[in-house]
Amino acid sequence: MERIDGHTLLIGLMAYPIRHSMSPTMHNNAFAKLGLNYAYLAFEIDNDKLEKAVDAIRTLDMRGSNVSMPNKQKIIPYLDKLDPAAKMAGAVNTVVNDNGVLTGYTTDGTGFMKSLADEGLDIRGKKMTLAGAGGAGTPIAIQAALDGVKEISIFNLDDAQWEQAEKNVEIINRETDCKATLHHLEDKEDFKKEIASSYIYCDATGVGMKPLENMTLVEDPSWFHKDMIVFDTVYAPRETKLMKVAKEAGVDHVLNGLGMMLEQGAEAFKLWTGEDMPVDYIRELLFSEDN
Amino acid sequence: MERIDGHTLLIGLMAYPIRHSMSPTMHNNAFAKLGLNYAYLAFEIDNDKLEKAVDAIRTLDMRGSNVSMPNKQKIIPYLDKLDPAAKMAGAVNTVVNDNGVLTGYTTDGTGFMKSLADEGLDIRGKKMTLAGAGGAGTPIAIQAALDGVKEISIFNLDDAQWEQAEKNVEIINRETDCKATLHHLEDKEDFKKEIASSYIYCDATGVGMKPLENMTLVEDPSWFHKDMIVFDTVYAPRETKLMKVAKEAGVDHVLNGLGMMLEQGAEAFKLWTGEDMPVDYIRELLFSEDN
Repeated sequence: MERIDGHTLLIGLMAYPIRHSMSPTMHNNAFAKLGLNYAYLAFEIDNDKLEKAVDAIRTLDMRGSNVSMPNKQKIIPYLDKLDPAAKMAGAVNTVVNDNGVLTGYTTDGTGFMKSLADEGLDIRGKKMTLAGAGGAGTPIAIQAALDGVKEISIFNLDDAQWEQAEKNVEIINRETDCKATLHHLEDKEDFKKEIASSYIYCDATGVGMKPLENMTLVEDPSWFHKDMIVFDTVYAPRETKLMKVAKEAGVDHVLNGLGMMLEQGAEAFKLWTGEDMPVDYIRELLFSEDN
Repeated sequence: MERIDGHTLLIGLMAYPIRHSMSPTMHNNAFAKLGLNYAYLAFEIDNDKLEKAVDAIRTLDMRGSNVSMPNKQKIIPYLDKLDPAAKMAGAVNTVVNDNGVLTGYTTDGTGFMKSLADEGLDIRGKKMTLAGAGGAGTPIAIQAALDGVKEISIFNLDDAQWEQAEKNVEIINRETDCKATLHHLEDKEDFKKEIASSYIYCDATGVGMKPLENMTLVEDPSWFHKDMIVFDTVYAPRETKLMKVAKEAGVDHVLNGLGMMLEQGAEAFKLWTGEDMPVDYIRELLFSEDN
């Protein structure tokens, strides 16, 4: 017997393109496992349909929605409230509907921190070098700073994202005890030096993702040291070129973005349902080829 | 593995109240059985939210929706096109979204005719006495007339529905070859006489439905004759007081509304998916206690 009945509440995912997302499979299997009466469906929503799609959350009494590219920033004016981290990041990936009051959250940063904790790793009080200030890099920087990372060196190209990188540094230095600095990704000597003095290097640029899977910002294993973390937010492929370089360097903790993807989903799941997503079960079910 | 993924298309049911409807269970099990990638969810939509809910069909690229009380008539101004039977009935229970163009259909009448055909019964060329001109009676009368029923005597109380009953008679006589007449349900002698000369008596008033399950418009078995059909659109309880009276009279074909409910769903299913609903499988799965 199918589990959807007249009492099932809808949760959406609003982005474009989106049909190949793993999130519907992840959340629906978690609902089924815990016997929670929700269904999670993807909707192809671009900026031009976003305001009406937010209306639909209210009209259809949806429990909430995930939001992804290109809507993470554009959705903010249509919501009623913002979680502090979402406000600082200027981006939302999760909307919760409490009786018509829509609150925006970002769970990418908490998902990042949680995925490190899952590995027994703690970056609080340490220094991070972070490449990228986009949809992944921004919430990672904000949450790391909020959670007590001591120092963050943010590297970005002098491109359209540079302004966002400046904002991130400015807001972290104003609102948290973390010391953030902004660096040019073009300056390889500076990049190498900052990585050398960091406990964690995180690449949040998406470089290394299919179909650019043979690219990496760090090609020389000697830039890394053994007792550090190298974290790539990419999870397709499971092992990026960056991760290969880090393993060649003998780095202790080399991680892809799969744990972050699962944990950002789990954080959203908790906001909608109040329950803990069975993350290990979902990881086994969806990504058993990784085990 | 749950069948909903990023490619799943949403179909709705917009009505109030609606949480106890069997339709989501019916359609989702049929989608699963045939491997069709749709999910059918109920939404609590009253008249005041209806226009925005129709907007949501377009915005979320839903494949369509069922519509029930109190929206069957009110939805018409918000649609782009109407099927001829829906136009004649002035009511819609099914919406199909073809790339943003919304067409309204009524499948209650075709479901009624199909449920008779499923029992090997053919009322074309025959006379019907029909009680009620509401959400069920109106599409039944229209479709029966369109399909070739020769004569329909419609009985209604002199209440708010009387005007709809007048409309139904007028449109049937103008648009079809069927001869329709309107009668007062208060006139018991007339009611008895019309039933006596009919091949089918259909009660579409809802009298006999829980919690009024001990009521019937016809209490005297002698009003019926053996070689006729007595059809009650009610299906909870499965055997109504009217059906008991008909069985006491030895009537050959005594039917409840379960077949009509399944077949109106199957007609909508076909409009959305192009596929035939596995009606026998669904009947067994959902209503096996009836077998």
